[in-house]
Amino acid sequence: MSGPTIDPAEIAADVAALSGIGVQPSGGVTRTTYDPAWVKARDLLVELLTERGLAARVDEVGNVCGRLAGTDGSQTVLTGSHVDTVPHGGNYDGALGILTGIAAVAALERDFGAPRDNIEVVAFVEEEGARFNADFLGSRALVGQVALDELHSTRDGDGISLATAMRAVGLAPERIGAAARADLKAFLELHIEQGPVLERTGTDVAVVDAITSLTVETAQVRGRADHAGTTPMALRADAVRAAARMVVAVDEQVGAVGEPGVATVGAWSALPGGANIVAEQAEFTLDARHPDPVVLRDLVERIHQQWREIAAAEGVELDIVPQRFTTGAPMDPELGAVLRRAARKLGASCQTLTSGAGHDSQVLAPHVPTGMLFVPSAAGRSHCPEEFTAPAQAAIGAQVLATALHQLAY
Amino acid sequence: MSGPTIDPAEIAADVAALSGIGVQPSGGVTRTTYDPAWVKARDLLVELLTERGLAARVDEVGNVCGRLAGTDGSQTVLTGSHVDTVPHGGNYDGALGILTGIAAVAALERDFGAPRDNIEVVAFVEEEGARFNADFLGSRALVGQVALDELHSTRDGDGISLATAMRAVGLAPERIGAAARADLKAFLELHIEQGPVLERTGTDVAVVDAITSLTVETAQVRGRADHAGTTPMALRADAVRAAARMVVAVDEQVGAVGEPGVATVGAWSALPGGANIVAEQAEFTLDARHPDPVVLRDLVERIHQQWREIAAAEGVELDIVPQRFTTGAPMDPELGAVLRRAARKLGASCQTLTSGAGHDSQVLAPHVPTGMLFVPSAAGRSHCPEEFTAPAQAAIGAQVLATALHQLAY
Repeated sequence: MSGPTIDPAEIAADVAALSGIGVQPSGGVTRTTYDPAWVKARDLLVELLTERGLAARVDEVGNVCGRLAGTDGSQTVLTGSHVDTVPHGGNYDGALGILTGIAAVAALERDFGAPRDNIEVVAFVEEEGARFNADFLGSRALVGQVALDELHSTRDGDGISLATAMRAVGLAPERIGAAARADLKAFLELHIEQGPVLERTGTDVAVVDAITSLTVETAQVRGRADHAGTTPMALRADAVRAAARMVVAVDEQVGAVGEPGVATVGAWSALPGGANIVAEQAEFTLDARHPDPVVLRDLVERIHQQWREIAAAEGVELDIVPQRFTTGAPMDPELGAVLRRAARKLGASCQTLTSGAGHDSQVLAPHVPTGMLFVPSAAGRSHCPEEFTAPAQAAIGAQVLATALHQLAY
Repeated sequence: MSGPTIDPAEIAADVAALSGIGVQPSGGVTRTTYDPAWVKARDLLVELLTERGLAARVDEVGNVCGRLAGTDGSQTVLTGSHVDTVPHGGNYDGALGILTGIAAVAALERDFGAPRDNIEVVAFVEEEGARFNADFLGSRALVGQVALDELHSTRDGDGISLATAMRAVGLAPERIGAAARADLKAFLELHIEQGPVLERTGTDVAVVDAITSLTVETAQVRGRADHAGTTPMALRADAVRAAARMVVAVDEQVGAVGEPGVATVGAWSALPGGANIVAEQAEFTLDARHPDPVVLRDLVERIHQQWREIAAAEGVELDIVPQRFTTGAPMDPELGAVLRRAARKLGASCQTLTSGAGHDSQVLAPHVPTGMLFVPSAAGRSHCPEEFTAPAQAAIGAQVLATALHQLAY
């Protein structure tokens, strides 16, 4: 494989260094925004960037940035991902996009010297929202979508506001507006797939065509508690029986839409929950995703329609409680072509995937041409200590990323 | 309506008196075996029986018996039901069979004087098994199925043995064998239906043709936890999706068997239970009933076969954990005919039902010709404070019972 020289061992060493920060005795790493582990990670990243010859700075929201200055420095090609984790998370989600970005830009500087445009690596804060539930805070600040109000009104589980937590780590909340960037020419994010497809197909990388739209809701089914022995089947208003049919209906409807649509019932429960009592109540969640928000809304409407038919037939009441609807984003087709050409040039196998998870890229995409590259996740695992991407696979991703950055910035 | 004169107001007053014992501040009555409420109920019943001219005694297991002596006292026609309740239970389950029995026998004595055979009213202990989980203890002792061993080895939630609890209320556990009866000619039990059929059909009473057989088991489904957004539908091993199909299969299979078969999934749960995580585990209960144990076993086998097919198709593992299999009993057809004739004579409407719940009658049936009579349950409710049977309906049941007892004992 030709192209910029990336050393898998160097990526592995960087992953190991970052993985040592926020280690939990009960397993996994927990690095949440502005906490002591985040401070250590910020300092480590500044050190790593400086070591590799990039000019490091921490922006107004706490994103760590490292710049390779361009000869015409009016525009910046950005790459990177987020540094925060879910509680008891893994060592690759977010982290690998930062560390492969550093490796890629360092290799470009070594092989080709200064670019025309600036190239910058970014480590975003608060993508997961694990501490403040302020998802994508770092990337939103970059596109001017974080107001001072939010910093005061958003609090963590202990009642500490974002503003207070920012001050504690040396940031000035009133300067949040200055985090907005007008110089961005493109953004490329490398991320682990968090799913099993690349591993199963034996493919090196995936170009993401779109990030999914997502809806989450809770269905509450109310029937009537009855004696399990003395109530004939036809006279029941059985919340569990109705809910089971609704779960099967979810699967039928998403099957009719086909890939990349997915729909999941992850939680379910029943009351009163006695083996010899017909269930009075059942509750379950629906998580449905499709990159096209119109298709998603239509899917959810079809599911609701079938649920209502089932509820009527079963004689139960149904309440649907919406939790959220997040509109995803298509990725930039031209950047997708740049990534595909880079893979082809390097002899790396490449396929197209839709991201079923949310990423900072969906925040930047409406403002800056944005592209995403997936590398394989061992067994498709993520958000858990078992997260793993082999150093050789990470290095292939970094080479594709470097080749694309070269195409864009030189 | 002709026949023995039963005063609905008297039954209502007796129900009210017994209902005052074991009242829970949070709702319902709790009278469990040998507890202070049971002692009070025992004493009240002895008083009631004595008042109505019946010779009261407490047998070796604590069953309260009241006898109207026959001119040829070698055989006894027994009627009655149980005095214990489930926790926070109602005022009619069990109680009404005792109190209508007392009213019926008192009316017979008043209208017809002494019978040929003895007639006895019994108030059984521990039918529900709420304290000792020793279901049907009182009726089992009557047919010689309680050994001293059981009294020592069976303990309540506080570790108190049946034997210790018996001594505390003046019973001698070592005399348990003497509770067995050889003089029983027939047993008739009046009970609330605990289901909605009589109320819905507007029928006065039901003659029970059989008490159901019952199986209870737990199904444990193990799939694989996966990201709800990044795992294509076809690559999932979704425990909830598989379990939902299994619940629907239960309904299909019991529908194919038809009435009086019933099958209920009352409890279900899923782990880890996150909306955005494909469920790794699902667990649910199956309670299946049919009066014919051969049909029931066949139904359960068909359900298991379909579950295994679903598990294979869904790529999940399935464990079926049996909890219990209780064989019910057919009721005596001749006693059924006696009850039906009694209803017809009184102009009471009557239908045949299978009991979907267990009763002391199923213990006595293999040893003594046994018949059961159901009276309506308001809204089919039972095992809850809402249990209700109107005094007029209870009195019709008592008249049918008295007429049948007259036929058998005079």
